Amino acid sequence: MTSFETLRWNGEADGRLVLIDQTRLPTELVEIELDTVEGVWEAIRSLRVRGAPAIGIAAAYGVCLGLQTVAASDEAARLARLDEVADYLATSRPTAVNLFWALERMRERAAELRGEATGDDLAEALLAEARAIHEEDRQMCAEIGRLGAALLPDDCGVLTHCNAGALATGGNGTALAVFYAAHDSGKRLRVYCDETRPLLQGARLSAWELQQRGLNVTLICDSAAAQLMREGRVQAIVTGADRIAANGDVANKIGTYQVALAAAAHEIPFYVAAPSSTFDLSLASGEAIPIEQRDAAEITAGFGPATAPEGIDVYNPAFDVTPARLIRAIVCERGIIEPVTAERIREALG
Amino acid sequence: MTSFETLRWNGEADGRLVLIDQTRLPTELVEIELDTVEGVWEAIRSLRVRGAPAIGIAAAYGVCLGLQTVAASDEAARLARLDEVADYLATSRPTAVNLFWALERMRERAAELRGEATGDDLAEALLAEARAIHEEDRQMCAEIGRLGAALLPDDCGVLTHCNAGALATGGNGTALAVFYAAHDSGKRLRVYCDETRPLLQGARLSAWELQQRGLNVTLICDSAAAQLMREGRVQAIVTGADRIAANGDVANKIGTYQVALAAAAHEIPFYVAAPSSTFDLSLASGEAIPIEQRDAAEITAGFGPATAPEGIDVYNPAFDVTPARLIRAIVCERGIIEPVTAERIREALG
Repeated sequence: MTSFETLRWNGEADGRLVLIDQTRLPTELVEIELDTVEGVWEAIRSLRVRGAPAIGIAAAYGVCLGLQTVAASDEAARLARLDEVADYLATSRPTAVNLFWALERMRERAAELRGEATGDDLAEALLAEARAIHEEDRQMCAEIGRLGAALLPDDCGVLTHCNAGALATGGNGTALAVFYAAHDSGKRLRVYCDETRPLLQGARLSAWELQQRGLNVTLICDSAAAQLMREGRVQAIVTGADRIAANGDVANKIGTYQVALAAAAHEIPFYVAAPSSTFDLSLASGEAIPIEQRDAAEITAGFGPATAPEGIDVYNPAFDVTPARLIRAIVCERGIIEPVTAERIREALG
Repeated sequence: MTSFETLRWNGEADGRLVLIDQTRLPTELVEIELDTVEGVWEAIRSLRVRGAPAIGIAAAYGVCLGLQTVAASDEAARLARLDEVADYLATSRPTAVNLFWALERMRERAAELRGEATGDDLAEALLAEARAIHEEDRQMCAEIGRLGAALLPDDCGVLTHCNAGALATGGNGTALAVFYAAHDSGKRLRVYCDETRPLLQGARLSAWELQQRGLNVTLICDSAAAQLMREGRVQAIVTGADRIAANGDVANKIGTYQVALAAAAHEIPFYVAAPSSTFDLSLASGEAIPIEQRDAAEITAGFGPATAPEGIDVYNPAFDVTPARLIRAIVCERGIIEPVTAERIREALG
């Protein structure tokens, strides 16, 4: 079913990391082959690979590339190199939680093998660990897709915001995995993608990957979502999540909250699809989630030419918070959380 | 107070029409001087001048330019030329109601004078008529501003969508007239402008004119409006209208409905500012208002480079309909219509 691969390892322990350069999408599908840890760092920093799960996987493979420069016979040098490489990769996107998590997992695997890994064993074990991280992510996506697809009618219009898709993960994505699984099971979907200003992940990435995989997809401006609902074109909404508080409030790409409000006004179910790693139970509610402010230039000159007067003040929050009461269910690889309450979340996450 | 003039007549009956070329905004403020009816036609067609009232005024002055090519002594030739010129200008933007209305008014004035207008009298009478159309529009804007300003708190954040401003009218605009009048009366406003995809009238025009006139203005993405409300930054919303049905349903730029839904969810008053000419009492409700679909390219390549995959389906409605129940009041030059009901509208319009 996959007509493209966001990232893959090519070869054995002496192999290469191959990934789609997402900065070239949607006009060009270009794969780049990376053979140095510096190349992986640059690819993450420059958003050639993006999406928390995909970044974590790329970093894990990046550790494997880093080890290739040290002789297999010198275990101490290899372990020192691993630390150096992991520290370095962690600086590529300082706020990406999955990045730190994946690097830590690689370090722990190496620590387990200390004193026992001779010759090429360490490199092989670490490549196996990176592949496991990748495979687990693929399975998480598949499970979210399977569970979420059951929520959709057999013939319906669905709407998504931003890109919680194959391009953001090692598998089929989260929100988009639901659409792919529903499509594969024979349901007839008409998918609407919000273009998702300012960075247009919906237009550039979601529309592209849905089109690549043969789904019926239509692009809209963010501001048209409510009108679409009013016209009866949308029967369900599925988005991803950046962070979910203990009470089920969801931080996600700016614009998600507005879509959820419109969905509530039209009594259309609004679903969030996200892995269990997205929950941050240390935050009681969405009020505690800090909202990152981004560059004015994303809005005033996001496409090259200036589209706003010089010196204009800009307010550009990267995320917003959708309160739990607007969310019909959260689709997680551990099950469907419905209704979205602190109690049900604790139960589902065990 | 006005730091720029959207359009003005320079001279007497042998004068010229001077207008701001709005296609050069927001990066350059360029005035163009038009001395032919063909120039006016092109300026309207190419959106150098836009906004229903401003188009009507430009067309009325265009008729005056058209008459300049015929000798003052030949009344029959002048009247024939007037018909020719009015028919021609009517083809510049076929759906602009104010355009037809202004041209009809110029024809009627000429008809009144038939047989009595000797020498330069006809040309002078028609210039006086065009100036009257312009002046009445200025007064309409001022009255809407005065009435609407009283609705705003003394210190508040306000939000608008698209451009219902000085650049769209012969005066201070409609929605933006409310902000200008409130500012002039000493109220402290923080104005937020939705950028208004796909054509960015908010970023290019509203942000520009508010900045020019010294108001405190901040640009946001359309998708951030609800988050702004959630953060308590907005105490009132004012937009314009393209067409208002007999029951008070309002057709306006795509995205208006979404803002009105978010306003309702946050219990923030949502106002529409529009002249009485915007009402179309032949339409019982907004259901009867046809929604124009526009070019896909506005969304897929609106800024030059392609921002969406080739061949993608696009749904690009130019307008949406906000139901009367979401509108706290309609500010019209004939008074404030509140609550927005068919009965109150009939009363207000007499």
